[in-house]
Amino acid sequence: MAKSVFYHAGCPVCVSAEHDIVNLIGADNVELVHLGEDRNRIAEAEKAGVKSVPALLTPSGNVLHLNFGASMAEVKG
Amino acid sequence: MAKSVFYHAGCPVCVSAEHDIVNLIGADNVELVHLGEDRNRIAEAEKAGVKSVPALLTPSGNVLHLNFGASMAEVKG
Repeated sequence: MAKSVFYHAGCPVCVSAEHDIVNLIGADNVELVHLGEDRNRIAEAEKAGVKSVPALLTPSGNVLHLNFGASMAEVKG
Repeated sequence: MAKSVFYHAGCPVCVSAEHDIVNLIGADNVELVHLGEDRNRIAEAEKAGVKSVPALLTPSGNVLHLNFGASMAEVKG
């Protein structure tokens, strides 16, 4: 199975959602990307349709926005 | 593994998210509850912390609110 990508920014809401996602779909099935640290991946996330974090990009290309942590504007700010 | 519960209300956003969740964690690992049809489960969902649908209640008791479809007020209305 192709990997999902979990985009986050280290906020408490993000960390909580990350634990839930890893428990649900397995650590081997998801790549974790911290946009605050990997800032060169912000453009990729936005292109994929990520509007806020935490968000999960599925293998089929859909974006699931989870419990609201921060907007992409806040991540870039 | 204990099952997750996916609460939805049949809206297009809910249906899309349902497909993503079933693909990610497997149909055997999630119970699908349509609150528009199973209205007697609305109280249970609210008690679990569901504030909007679609939402996923994890086995650990956390609620992940996904792409916003409808508030619980709209579901009850």
